[in-house]
Amino acid sequence: MTAQKHMALAALVQGTGAHPASWLQTDTQDDASTDIEHFRRLAQLAERGRFDIFFIADTPAARTENLHAWSRFPMFMNVLEPITLLAALAGATKHIGLGATASTSFFEPYNLARQFASLDHISHGRAAWNVVTSANDYAARNFGLDKLPPHDKRYDKAKEFVEVVEALWDSWEDDAFVNDREQGLAFLPEKQHPLDHDGVYFKLHGALNIARPPQGKPVIIQAGASETGKEFAARTAEVVFASDPTVEAGKRFYDDLKGRMAKYGRSPEEMKILTGLSVVIGATEAEAEDKYQTLQGMIHPDVGRMRLATDLETDLSDLPLDEPIPEHRIPQTSNHHRAYFDHIVRMIREEKLTLREMCMRYERGNVTFRGTPVQVADHMQAWLDAGAADGFMMIFHTMPGGMRDFIDQVVPILQQRGLMRTEYEGSTLRENLGLKRPENRYVAG
Amino acid sequence: MTAQKHMALAALVQGTGAHPASWLQTDTQDDASTDIEHFRRLAQLAERGRFDIFFIADTPAARTENLHAWSRFPMFMNVLEPITLLAALAGATKHIGLGATASTSFFEPYNLARQFASLDHISHGRAAWNVVTSANDYAARNFGLDKLPPHDKRYDKAKEFVEVVEALWDSWEDDAFVNDREQGLAFLPEKQHPLDHDGVYFKLHGALNIARPPQGKPVIIQAGASETGKEFAARTAEVVFASDPTVEAGKRFYDDLKGRMAKYGRSPEEMKILTGLSVVIGATEAEAEDKYQTLQGMIHPDVGRMRLATDLETDLSDLPLDEPIPEHRIPQTSNHHRAYFDHIVRMIREEKLTLREMCMRYERGNVTFRGTPVQVADHMQAWLDAGAADGFMMIFHTMPGGMRDFIDQVVPILQQRGLMRTEYEGSTLRENLGLKRPENRYVAG
Repeated sequence: MTAQKHMALAALVQGTGAHPASWLQTDTQDDASTDIEHFRRLAQLAERGRFDIFFIADTPAARTENLHAWSRFPMFMNVLEPITLLAALAGATKHIGLGATASTSFFEPYNLARQFASLDHISHGRAAWNVVTSANDYAARNFGLDKLPPHDKRYDKAKEFVEVVEALWDSWEDDAFVNDREQGLAFLPEKQHPLDHDGVYFKLHGALNIARPPQGKPVIIQAGASETGKEFAARTAEVVFASDPTVEAGKRFYDDLKGRMAKYGRSPEEMKILTGLSVVIGATEAEAEDKYQTLQGMIHPDVGRMRLATDLETDLSDLPLDEPIPEHRIPQTSNHHRAYFDHIVRMIREEKLTLREMCMRYERGNVTFRGTPVQVADHMQAWLDAGAADGFMMIFHTMPGGMRDFIDQVVPILQQRGLMRTEYEGSTLRENLGLKRPENRYVAG
Repeated sequence: MTAQKHMALAALVQGTGAHPASWLQTDTQDDASTDIEHFRRLAQLAERGRFDIFFIADTPAARTENLHAWSRFPMFMNVLEPITLLAALAGATKHIGLGATASTSFFEPYNLARQFASLDHISHGRAAWNVVTSANDYAARNFGLDKLPPHDKRYDKAKEFVEVVEALWDSWEDDAFVNDREQGLAFLPEKQHPLDHDGVYFKLHGALNIARPPQGKPVIIQAGASETGKEFAARTAEVVFASDPTVEAGKRFYDDLKGRMAKYGRSPEEMKILTGLSVVIGATEAEAEDKYQTLQGMIHPDVGRMRLATDLETDLSDLPLDEPIPEHRIPQTSNHHRAYFDHIVRMIREEKLTLREMCMRYERGNVTFRGTPVQVADHMQAWLDAGAADGFMMIFHTMPGGMRDFIDQVVPILQQRGLMRTEYEGSTLRENLGLKRPENRYVAG
């Protein structure tokens, strides 16, 4: 068992919120996605709510096709780059972890290792890296490729990438830089351990040019639901963002994933599984439902159809809105977000909805939970009690409104129940999550 | 003529200062090179001194050989990554420009374009990019190469890299993101201009996923002194860091470089040439000289020999300290920092010093000016009056001490003489430098 008793909590942060129509709300800010002051206020709000991680999702690309639909749903079209964004937030916060998404398909490992180590120093031990392989051909085209390599190749490369980065973080022992002015010795040469790596995807000889990160290594986040993704997570991830529709499915995923860790010499408490939870809160259940339906009703049909087409990885533009998607239009396999793909296939096969109904009902990942503060707290407790999650990656439809509702109305209930901290316990993200600081590989033994 | 009448001023910032023995001073801070609070204080100090640019040099590598010498001179061994560092400083400053070095040899253009655009948004228009091609084989080995490509190939790649990055910054017209909630239109599709680039070194199809930077583009800095470097600067650079030993040489470089701009359709005031100026200030000339000699005397002979060997690009470890470097040991040509190389060759051929004398006397770039505040101001004015510089890239031997001396003692004199601003004129770096905000290439006509 870990010393950590309460749940772990991350907030998925996007400018005006995660809902495709959030930006249409009259109380949102025009330049919310690029205004650093807006993000400072959000980070301070999340810190007031005692969140563990302020988390920024990312895709290194803007859409260039179908722009008339995307102009109604400008997701990732105009965003601050996550690493620079979080570096800018470090000084405005003291406790909350700063999690940035960065792709192993499109970065140089040395640059990425440096930037996350730097973020960890700047934030005094609060950096987290969400390792993704990227899932978009249109992103690949920004990096010299016509399309993405297949899923398994991307994970092979990701595995080697993470190995290289983690080795670079161990380039220096913790006490290498002694600054001994009397001896004229800035560091102890024998405490540098250059990497000498000649792999399939990367070749490096060198040491990172920054002291070991305060956390030993920034916290490693992942979110893969495929077989390959689960093996990768079992080997590497310290925080996993899961996405299952029910407690039962969540429990299966949780046990499955934690069960895979032993063969990599890891114990279950070395990983925190945070299930994605999207909430809309009302004073009554009816009010919450009303708020939710109002937002859903603001989704333009073109946007709904486009979102489905993206995640089903096929064109749906010729299909009539008021009939179901024919079985033969379902692609054989997913090369991108497998969990989203599987969800849509289930909607087609099991729920037999029309395309229009699916457009209005489909949500990426979990279905939004609508309820009163107590109902939300009960729902969260049920997941924890069932052993289906160690915590939640909260998805707020609107920002700052949705997050503020949760912090003002739900967090106090969770705190009363002993499910959430009232003060931060440690000074680093790793300490707050109850994760051990890893020993340097060249010292451990 | 430009509206800008006073000089432009940049500060080269390293943890404890630029002198190889700066870290040995008893009043320096142990973790100066990674402590963000130290850099916040430095940036605020530079802003109090009305500097234009807070500038971070960089090499994406730590030395892994000859560590016993490097442990006495830990340059770039343990540093915050410049882009993350400057993002973290944006919120602690209001006016000063934030200049980061990043290499065209080791970055993906899309990532770099994004991060600098993001820094420009975060700082409300204060980002500058020092374009370097990198000059170290040991850095190349961190990025899959055994050694650097030759000088001219690196510049070919740099030229294409900058073209791609500048085109990406123009991906969106300034008024593309309208956030029209009534029409449900977040942006105007026709104001997106994806890049379709199929070049020698890079292939990209895509638009940057962030609005056009507040400055149109971050200010472009360069420092090449070779023929290729000068052509590149004449075409591209808006700020040039020069390095000439005398006013006469500086004037030749200045006229040469500005004279090359017309063929690229540029006028001379579109570039500010800042000559590197290293100063040690004393109440009397003798006191300044004494401070300087004390620092020089702290350089370990192993460090002096190693610095010479690095910049002469050859091994000197077998040579006796008390004889001159034999003529036949001078390499045919430089592949790295040509200006440093040429300087050492001049010392060997013209000054006929012993190796030991050169070890103690050699300084990268300019020779340190030692004098009283008035003498420093006179020296600077002489460069400006001769038309040999538009300003200076100040190099302080110790930080914060050297910079504080300059700001407290020299800046007021320069202000009295009307050579320096007393308040910032504009809100962006570009405005303060008197550089025009470029029109978007897809709009200009």
